[in-house]
This record gives sequence, C-alpha cells and structure tokens, in this order.
Amino acid sequence: MKKLKRNERIGALMKILSDRPNHIFTYNYFTDIFNAAKSTISEDIVIAKELVEKLELGDIETISGASGGVKYSPRISKNKIDKFLKEIASKLSDKSRLIPGGFMYMADVLYHPDTVYNIGKIFATKFAGQNIDYVVTVETKGIPLALMTGKILNVPLVIIRRNTKVTEGPTVSINYLSGSTKQIQTMSLSRRAIPEGSRVLIIDDFMKAGGTAKGMQDMMKEFKAHVVGTGIMIATAQPANKVVSNYTNLLTLKGIDEDKEEIYVEPSI
Amino acid sequence: MKKLKRNERIGALMKILSDRPNHIFTYNYFTDIFNAAKSTISEDIVIAKELVEKLELGDIETISGASGGVKYSPRISKNKIDKFLKEIASKLSDKSRLIPGGFMYMADVLYHPDTVYNIGKIFATKFAGQNIDYVVTVETKGIPLALMTGKILNVPLVIIRRNTKVTEGPTVSINYLSGSTKQIQTMSLSRRAIPEGSRVLIIDDFMKAGGTAKGMQDMMKEFKAHVVGTGIMIATAQPANKVVSNYTNLLTLKGIDEDKEEIYVEPSI
Repeated sequence: MKKLKRNERIGALMKILSDRPNHIFTYNYFTDIFNAAKSTISEDIVIAKELVEKLELGDIETISGASGGVKYSPRISKNKIDKFLKEIASKLSDKSRLIPGGFMYMADVLYHPDTVYNIGKIFATKFAGQNIDYVVTVETKGIPLALMTGKILNVPLVIIRRNTKVTEGPTVSINYLSGSTKQIQTMSLSRRAIPEGSRVLIIDDFMKAGGTAKGMQDMMKEFKAHVVGTGIMIATAQPANKVVSNYTNLLTLKGIDEDKEEIYVEPSI
Repeated sequence: MKKLKRNERIGALMKILSDRPNHIFTYNYFTDIFNAAKSTISEDIVIAKELVEKLELGDIETISGASGGVKYSPRISKNKIDKFLKEIASKLSDKSRLIPGGFMYMADVLYHPDTVYNIGKIFATKFAGQNIDYVVTVETKGIPLALMTGKILNVPLVIIRRNTKVTEGPTVSINYLSGSTKQIQTMSLSRRAIPEGSRVLIIDDFMKAGGTAKGMQDMMKEFKAHVVGTGIMIATAQPANKVVSNYTNLLTLKGIDEDKEEIYVEPSI
C-alpha cells in the first residue's frame, strides 16, 4: 500500500482505536497497515493521546513488553454524563409513556443504539479499571445496554435465560423470589458460559425491589464468579430498601401519578 | 477551546464519524467544536473522504441543503467479509460445540461484541441504500446482531417478544407455525413500536425451516411495514425448502454428525 500522510495516519489510527475500544493493538499492526516505521507510529500515537485528552474522550495507553501495544479507553466526562442523563430523564418523563397499571413505556429508549452506546460509555467509565471479564444480564430489555457496555470494555456479554434452552447444553438453574411480586421465578445459564474465577459486571435496565439483581448475583456464586459491580439504568425510589445494596443506578423513577398523568424521573449520579 | 492542528482535526473527525455511523453531522457542529472556519472543515472532510476510500472503510458523504452535513457509512470489503466468515465458520465447526440432540453451542460467538459488530457491518453493507427505518428481531439470541446492525445503519432496534408484557402497553400478537417442530407459537409486539409505512430490516441468528422469519414477516404486515430484507447469520442446509424465500444468510450449517463428532459450517455469501 502507498504511504499515508501524517494526518491520514492520525485519522485512521483514531478510527481503528475507537472502533474497538480497550483492545490492545500491537505496533506491528500499525506499521503493517500504514507501511511506516515504528518510530513514526510512536509519534502518531503521542499526537492521538494528546488529542483524546484535550477533547476529554478518554485515554490512549501504551503498554510495553512482549504483549504490548496501544489501546483506547473511552471515558465520558462528568459534564456530558449530566447533560445526557438530564435529556433521558426528560424524555422518560413524557406522559405519553404512561401505561395503564402504573407502568412506563421505555423500549424505544432502551433499544436506541446511540442511547445505549452512551449508557455503555457511562457504565464503562464508572467501572473502569476493575479488570472485568464478562458483562452479565438477564433477558430481555437490558441486553442492548449490556452489549454496548461489553463493547466499550471489550469483553463478552453473557445472557441469563428465563427458561432452560436445549441449545445451551447443560445449564445451572436457580429459583429466586421476585422482590416486588413475591413470586418464585427461574433463571438459567449454560454451564460453559462463564469460567470459574471470572470477574463480572451485572447490567440491567430496571430495578424495583432488586429481586432479579439478587438472583443474578446468586447465579454468579454458582459459577464462582466475582461480581465487581451492578449497574442499573433506572431504579424506582420505592421500595427504598432493595434486596440488594451494592448497585449503581443512573436514573431514579421517583413515581408515576396516573391521575395527574405524570412520571417523575431524575438523574441519580 | 484552543484551535486544533489539522492532523488533530482529522483524528477527531474520524473518531466522531465512526462513533456514530450514518448520522448526519452539520458543518456547524464541527466548526463549533474545532473552533475553525467552514472552509477549513470542508478541506478536512475531503482528506477524511479520500482516506476511507483508500483504506476501503466505506464512504464519507457530504449532503448539501438546509439539513445538510456530513455522514460516514461504513462498508466492509468483499475480501474482509470472506476472511471474517471463514474464521467464524471454522470457529463454529469446532466439535466442542456439539450439544446432545444435534445442536451446536454458539452463544459465545453471538454475544461477542466485536464479532456481532462485524456482522452488523456486513448486513449494513448488504442492505445499504434501502432507507431502512427499523431493524426488527425476535428475542433472544439475535438481539446483539440486530442491535449492532441498527448501530451501523443509525436506526432503532425493535424486539418482538415471545410473550405479552404488561410494560409494553397494547400489543399485537400473532400465532405462527414453527417450521421445524410444527408447533404453534406466539409472538407479540407493542402497538407503538413501529409506525405505519415504515421500512424494516429483519435480522435473526438462526434459521431452520424459516417459521420464525415468516412469523416476523407476517407481524410486519400487521404494522403495515415494508420488509426490505431478512438477514440471517446461519441457516441450515436442510430443509432446502424454507417457508420463506427472500432471505440472506451469511453462513450455512451443512450438517451435524453426532457419531463422527463433526459440525459442518460454510460461508454462503
């Protein structure tokens, strides 16, 4: 391939690094595709590093040694988090979302790729440096959030199923008590999904009493996995005492007033 | 903010465009964050445009007019598709994936963020220029693929549920015949999920006889939506006559031989 100019190399470098956050690219990878010397690539990386710091887009880190290289860890600034969560809170507070029975429609928000990508960045920023091996969720609505968090952290997603599936092979099933309805429910996960000793981040879209999150935490015990954190997009203010204590929710659903047709959602970080 | 140098601007431009494919960014967006004149930004965009062409990363398009701006449409080259699908086919052919009953474990592949991001790029390349409004799938295992396809196309995901959920509000439910087991199954979708007249792309992970894909196509009729295509990650060679005819599968499962402990998977595009 023809040699690229410096500005082209910086452009390509930023594109490659952002497409695959937290993946370690070797220097050889770039010397090959850019047809350039290692010293040139090193200079390019210094420029890219300063750039992401200047624009508060995260960190570019160089790792020395045999398995060394360069990786980009996106971060989202406190200002951007605040602005983004305010927008989401306002969107979710729209009364057209009211569903009879005191529920709130939020599939459009949870399934919007850019929205969940931003939420993934927030969770990845919150749980940075935790050496996470897997992001774990339970089907269905939290899957997009969990996948995008895994995309940013560069780790696989694990989806716990509500029912045992024949295509999963041998599974571990647990029963858990739904915190709000007090009904016994089941969740199930393929035995080969998570190796013993893994460090996992639990992600879910919604928490009321916390029964499902507790179920996922208990499931992780069966896999001898260490839960480094539990990230929830939106948790209800009531009941204040959840059955889990160790979680981070981005938004709080203060309440739904069906008579007044009002939904109260606030950022909580 | 301080002015950025050209190579910094190109780097930031590529980062911003690749983070949000197919989104139209206005020139003002860049003149603001780069603190630079429109003519300068135009020159930067020309450089970025040539760069993505040179590296076969897709197209950067400038749109004139009031709602004009610039957008990046990732494409993946035929060579890269071939190489990637061969790798996946080889990974799926590993005999450790055999599950008694003639099934194949593939959750690790389907839930790997980079793998599904690449598959999303392939589907987005295949169905480019179709003015797609929504990517539609049915829970559960196809969700990551469908979300990433939506991410690249910059359109929302819609997830059809297996059961009616109270949090979805009024729903449309249909019964369909599973093509392989001949059992009647149900799928359900919130009435507010898709406006009439939308153009949708159906994405799923697996197809045997095609009953589920047919069910999704029928569901779209209920929403008066136009199905522009159906993309499947892997379809079985048998039965050769599926109940749907109009679909694109990336891989073919030729067969599983439990006695010989062999799985035969081949790329099919």
